[in-house]
Amino acid sequence: MSASKSRKLNKVVLAYSGGLDTSVILKWLQEEYGCEVVTFTADIGQGEEVEPARAKAQKLGVKDIYIEDLNEEFVKDYVFPMFRANAEYEGEYLLGTSIARPLIAKRLVEIAEETGAQAISHGATGKGNDQVRFELGAYALKPDIKIIAPWREWDLNSREKLLNYAEKHDIAVEGKKKKNEAPYSMDANLLHISYEGGELEDPWYEPEADMWRRTVDPELAPDQPEYVEITFKKGDPVEFNGKKLSPAKMLRKLNEVAGMHGIGRADIVENRYVGMKSRGCYETPGGTLLLKAHRAIESITLDRELAHLKDDLMPRYATLIYNGYWWSPERLSMQKLIDDTQTRVNGVVRLKLFKGNMMVVGRKSETDSLFDQSISTFEDDKGAYDQKDAEGFIKLNALRLRIQNKQK
Amino acid sequence: MSASKSRKLNKVVLAYSGGLDTSVILKWLQEEYGCEVVTFTADIGQGEEVEPARAKAQKLGVKDIYIEDLNEEFVKDYVFPMFRANAEYEGEYLLGTSIARPLIAKRLVEIAEETGAQAISHGATGKGNDQVRFELGAYALKPDIKIIAPWREWDLNSREKLLNYAEKHDIAVEGKKKKNEAPYSMDANLLHISYEGGELEDPWYEPEADMWRRTVDPELAPDQPEYVEITFKKGDPVEFNGKKLSPAKMLRKLNEVAGMHGIGRADIVENRYVGMKSRGCYETPGGTLLLKAHRAIESITLDRELAHLKDDLMPRYATLIYNGYWWSPERLSMQKLIDDTQTRVNGVVRLKLFKGNMMVVGRKSETDSLFDQSISTFEDDKGAYDQKDAEGFIKLNALRLRIQNKQK
Amino acid sequence: MSASKSRKLNKVVLAYSGGLDTSVILKWLQEEYGCEVVTFTADIGQGEEVEPARAKAQKLGVKDIYIEDLNEEFVKDYVFPMFRANAEYEGEYLLGTSIARPLIAKRLVEIAEETGAQAISHGATGKGNDQVRFELGAYALKPDIKIIAPWREWDLNSREKLLNYAEKHDIAVEGKKKKNEAPYSMDANLLHISYEGGELEDPWYEPEADMWRRTVDPELAPDQPEYVEITFKKGDPVEFNGKKLSPAKMLRKLNEVAGMHGIGRADIVENRYVGMKSRGCYETPGGTLLLKAHRAIESITLDRELAHLKDDLMPRYATLIYNGYWWSPERLSMQKLIDDTQTRVNGVVRLKLFKGNMMVVGRKSETDSLFDQSISTFEDDKGAYDQKDAEGFIKLNALRLRIQNKQK
Amino acid sequence: MSASKSRKLNKVVLAYSGGLDTSVILKWLQEEYGCEVVTFTADIGQGEEVEPARAKAQKLGVKDIYIEDLNEEFVKDYVFPMFRANAEYEGEYLLGTSIARPLIAKRLVEIAEETGAQAISHGATGKGNDQVRFELGAYALKPDIKIIAPWREWDLNSREKLLNYAEKHDIAVEGKKKKNEAPYSMDANLLHISYEGGELEDPWYEPEADMWRRTVDPELAPDQPEYVEITFKKGDPVEFNGKKLSPAKMLRKLNEVAGMHGIGRADIVENRYVGMKSRGCYETPGGTLLLKAHRAIESITLDRELAHLKDDLMPRYATLIYNGYWWSPERLSMQKLIDDTQTRVNGVVRLKLFKGNMMVVGRKSETDSLFDQSISTFEDDKGAYDQKDAEGFIKLNALRLRIQNKQK
Repeated sequence: MSASKSRKLNKVVLAYSGGLDTSVILKWLQEEYGCEVVTFTADIGQGEEVEPARAKAQKLGVKDIYIEDLNEEFVKDYVFPMFRANAEYEGEYLLGTSIARPLIAKRLVEIAEETGAQAISHGATGKGNDQVRFELGAYALKPDIKIIAPWREWDLNSREKLLNYAEKHDIAVEGKKKKNEAPYSMDANLLHISYEGGELEDPWYEPEADMWRRTVDPELAPDQPEYVEITFKKGDPVEFNGKKLSPAKMLRKLNEVAGMHGIGRADIVENRYVGMKSRGCYETPGGTLLLKAHRAIESITLDRELAHLKDDLMPRYATLIYNGYWWSPERLSMQKLIDDTQTRVNGVVRLKLFKGNMMVVGRKSETDSLFDQSISTFEDDKGAYDQKDAEGFIKLNALRLRIQNKQK
Repeated sequence: MSASKSRKLNKVVLAYSGGLDTSVILKWLQEEYGCEVVTFTADIGQGEEVEPARAKAQKLGVKDIYIEDLNEEFVKDYVFPMFRANAEYEGEYLLGTSIARPLIAKRLVEIAEETGAQAISHGATGKGNDQVRFELGAYALKPDIKIIAPWREWDLNSREKLLNYAEKHDIAVEGKKKKNEAPYSMDANLLHISYEGGELEDPWYEPEADMWRRTVDPELAPDQPEYVEITFKKGDPVEFNGKKLSPAKMLRKLNEVAGMHGIGRADIVENRYVGMKSRGCYETPGGTLLLKAHRAIESITLDRELAHLKDDLMPRYATLIYNGYWWSPERLSMQKLIDDTQTRVNGVVRLKLFKGNMMVVGRKSETDSLFDQSISTFEDDKGAYDQKDAEGFIKLNALRLRIQNKQK
Repeated sequence: MSASKSRKLNKVVLAYSGGLDTSVILKWLQEEYGCEVVTFTADIGQGEEVEPARAKAQKLGVKDIYIEDLNEEFVKDYVFPMFRANAEYEGEYLLGTSIARPLIAKRLVEIAEETGAQAISHGATGKGNDQVRFELGAYALKPDIKIIAPWREWDLNSREKLLNYAEKHDIAVEGKKKKNEAPYSMDANLLHISYEGGELEDPWYEPEADMWRRTVDPELAPDQPEYVEITFKKGDPVEFNGKKLSPAKMLRKLNEVAGMHGIGRADIVENRYVGMKSRGCYETPGGTLLLKAHRAIESITLDRELAHLKDDLMPRYATLIYNGYWWSPERLSMQKLIDDTQTRVNGVVRLKLFKGNMMVVGRKSETDSLFDQSISTFEDDKGAYDQKDAEGFIKLNALRLRIQNKQK
Repeated sequence: MSASKSRKLNKVVLAYSGGLDTSVILKWLQEEYGCEVVTFTADIGQGEEVEPARAKAQKLGVKDIYIEDLNEEFVKDYVFPMFRANAEYEGEYLLGTSIARPLIAKRLVEIAEETGAQAISHGATGKGNDQVRFELGAYALKPDIKIIAPWREWDLNSREKLLNYAEKHDIAVEGKKKKNEAPYSMDANLLHISYEGGELEDPWYEPEADMWRRTVDPELAPDQPEYVEITFKKGDPVEFNGKKLSPAKMLRKLNEVAGMHGIGRADIVENRYVGMKSRGCYETPGGTLLLKAHRAIESITLDRELAHLKDDLMPRYATLIYNGYWWSPERLSMQKLIDDTQTRVNGVVRLKLFKGNMMVVGRKSETDSLFDQSISTFEDDKGAYDQKDAEGFIKLNALRLRIQNKQK
């Protein structure tokens, strides 16, 4: 490790989990760059305590330690706006990891500004999407920020070297065993848990039943279906079974009920921004339920062409988020369009949950329903719709087809 | 009924089911237009015998009676090409009704040409999409065809009047009671059964459990999961559990197995082309399974940008089919693109079916997999991918974002 | 003319030009519907006096006469928002007629509400786009409005019958001769003049030189080029050669200078919404110049992906306007996106005008230029850009292509 | 220059112009990589002799020298297919440089295969698009090819160092003076000449009149307009004024006539793929005329929705080419769609050329015109179109708007 290259930095803000990898990074930054390290640890619903990171950081000599609960901000300003768009990457992935990165990136650069740090650092590897998401976000928000991605720089490119480095620098490795045992890597936040790598790298391999943590196996889910009602306001869920909930509490509740019924698993092969295919298993119980319910409330409150416009733009919007462009001007302008469509997406959706299934069984909106029974009825509509109009409608839509037939 | 207006036609080809409605239409055409009626009855897997239509037509004086088994053609030339595009209308509807109409339209005009008929006729109402699909199809294929849509013309606009007309003209009404009892209307073919109207017109109303006919209730489906393997060639399923099947037999098999496991129900509110919202319940067991499996085989055999291009175009393609533009030049040109993407979509998908759930648990392609474990691995990749490249990739992708930040 | 059908209306607001056609309509409405007619005549820069319409309407017994100067509103709220999108229908038509109709439709329904009229009426024919634009606009703004389109109803379907009707009802026909002589029909407003019909119906026929009215023949335009500077603020032109101008005055000025230099003619065949192709000749001098200048100011102030997003959406946006969907929710939501992109489109464009040509020769923005000479320079950039980054950028973008090659 | 790093290569194919830069590269490759260099010099209409490159290469010790006339292939397989799509990058750039690179890339890898070379090399800098285009093309066609981009590697990063290197290695620098004098850099082929860099780096600077080489200054162009006729077959121009011409001869002819009339200049700021904005001046006389004519022949032979589909896809297609993805699967599949739309794009376009202006004054197609005068006529159409159909057409298109109004 060449501690050379006059690459001195005064201070670096590190996205710090408290685990082995980022602890080694912490030490390595101090050694390699001779800099002060500021740690930032966020609770975004990953399901692990964040407080223990404080002691670990202190032990490594860190003075500025940021530990924050970002659950509400995460859901309100990131997850919900994204669900307004019905975003699915490649038709299946609910972007659970992707949507958390922009928030982390934002806080990293904000803390860099607060603490006068020149750089930020993260523990994402050089093969994945997360490095891109962290860094594009950071550069967009603070163009002159320096970014250190140790996994792309150092030579600690095997588990063994990492452990040796930890031992040599007296870094606790209690997490070692568990990590070693898990035959895949995980990422978790309030929206999802993902699994990839290890055994999952064979796309013909079916994951072990005990890999899944946030959803009950559909086979073991309750034998009785459960009905739930979700109330939406401007496209966001605001009440569950008639009870108002804050954004994070709502998502937690949706996770709980959907997870209990075995809803929200996905096992897919996706295309990474950096160019390769990758197999990922995802648990997104609440998000899966939310997407279904949101589509249902839109189905009665959203004008047809507005819905189609959103459907046409969705893959692009989802790809932007997947690729790390949350803070790009194009995502921000698209959000303006999407949010504008949600003004009247108000009402209630009723769903039946059962062993991995969600069936929408009812949707209503007192104020904004566009479903007009008096028009669509098969029965006498008392003149609400003149069937004779259909002839002209068809004739004029057919005109170009009839003319075009001449060419055949 | 004014038998006036000099609206004489020599001969009309009628899409004839043998049921009450089209029997009344048959008679009405003879009366109203003083014309010979040619009947056309197709078996497209609706699950009812078509032969009985012969005797009924004969009884009404029809001489030219066409009764045809179009199952194979329907699946091979309509259903499979559509599934190559992963088509879903408004994110949820698998276009079961929409995709059958172009085939019927085509045969109607072909028979008109064979028999020298000036016109065709159908039993679709003036409020629905089907009239549009029949007529746009027919006009595109034969611009000078005349089309008679009795429901838009006559005054038999209530059940009672229809029955009176039937009685008056000695038309058997055995179907009457059943029809009257079913609190909704149905459409069926090898791809799906749909239910709409009646009680379903209230979008808050949950349909009765016994409405569903082609899928077992997930609650009553087998308690044991079942694994199946589907083999694709050029994007079409060709083998089921290793056994070659013709297109129609394949879809029948997929219906059987998916239906048994309670897979393929949908309860949605959709936007009709003619301008109103409409609630529909759909059973598409085989199609639902096929879509899932097709996406999965694409996930390892289709290049990322090809997949994204398809995703971007899909809503437009699906809307074209929904709206009745199967025979339009734009659908035909889009199909060229889609089919070209499927050249290497070859391989096997393994799925686990259980009580309404389908989980993809494996996908492989000996000849065409783009999944390269040696690159995506978290382990040492022996130089297949240089992590340092990621820095340049990110830096250049970030450049515009950094410059753009100056405006903020 | 059957004055029957119990089709009584209390009051109708008529879009009234004062010309022969709408005068006949005025009378016909009074006769046919036994209703009071309210006339609405707008000055939107068509270049003819609107005041004379007052006397004509009075002579026909009209009591409520609305004559309004809408030039500023037209440009500010319709033309400029549309140009923010760089809208061109089918790559060539600047939507001069299309963009005026929504304003007229809006005023018609507003006046109907003010005067308690049940219906509105217009003089557009049943073959064109304008009927659609008027009526979709009116229905969107006031769903229960009744619309009377005499050209689709009456039997005055020839020039001769129209003149006879006028004579019979003592309607002045001074415009008759001119109309008869002009071998095409015209539409004009502050944005453009259009010519269609008559001799122009042969797409191989070159229009006479004297047809064009708002632009000098390029062959007769000044032999000296002229330089002009247009200053933009939030995407709208606000200064011409350094002088502030109101929206209508700006467009008038642009028309004047561009017209003098022979800029802004187009001779095209377009596809009407009602299904047929139609040949139109257009003069849009100021608009043509504005579009060129707007694209140029965007070229240095708009982020690349924002520009591409706009380019991708533009044809759809333009088609919405062409088809009459200005007041649709989808146009309104798209406008939100477009307007959001224009926040920083501030700066000056310099153009050289000469005999039909416009060459952008300079663009600058003190506050918002994203053109960074220090990066793009071929000379030494002092480290602003690391050329080595390009290798990683290319390598990762190539990765999927390299993997995909395996299939070949 | 460290001739170290065990980076030995057996043989490298170099895209060689014979000029100073690529001569230095040739020598540098021999020195740095100790390899044999194969030179490839293509005539693609750049307007300079290619034969002189032979002697220069021989003098530098090259044994395998490829000198090829690719004009016909360039126009037939690259330029014409691209014009079928009406491709314009960012609404203004006709992709003159972009479209030539894929052909060069293809020949480089083919020659590498023929000669057993491991690598290819080119003279594009690390800031531009061309490096990306060469390399993405090469990687797509031959994934294991090695690519050497000296400008990203060496330290000859100033004119002076380059000249010193040339002098030291006895490389003729006759081009030196001219290059030094030209205050911008150029690229030329049969489709265009581009100018960028130097004085043009100031986007407010108007280029000198004598920069432009392939088009006459509009001010100096003939005072008499000229009429020309271009005949298209399947979307490609095949006859000029009734005379059949091969692809390259056609483009040469179009260049000649358009250039003489001052047609085809553009002065724009564009967004490079590598992230920065860049100012470019382009002369594309024949291409500009071809685009105008192609749009015109499409206007009467292409169905509306086919035309709109093409317009919607065009920006994406153009961006693919601009960014270097000609050989990508997505470009190839899109081409299938585009080519399919051109099957009936047959006919003649008549244009009037005058001092920088092109006015389409006629278009006709004996076999494939969809322009039906009998329908669009303002005169009596003898029943070809029933104006009453328009009412139903409008009513049903308005239905959703009327219902949606309830939400307001």
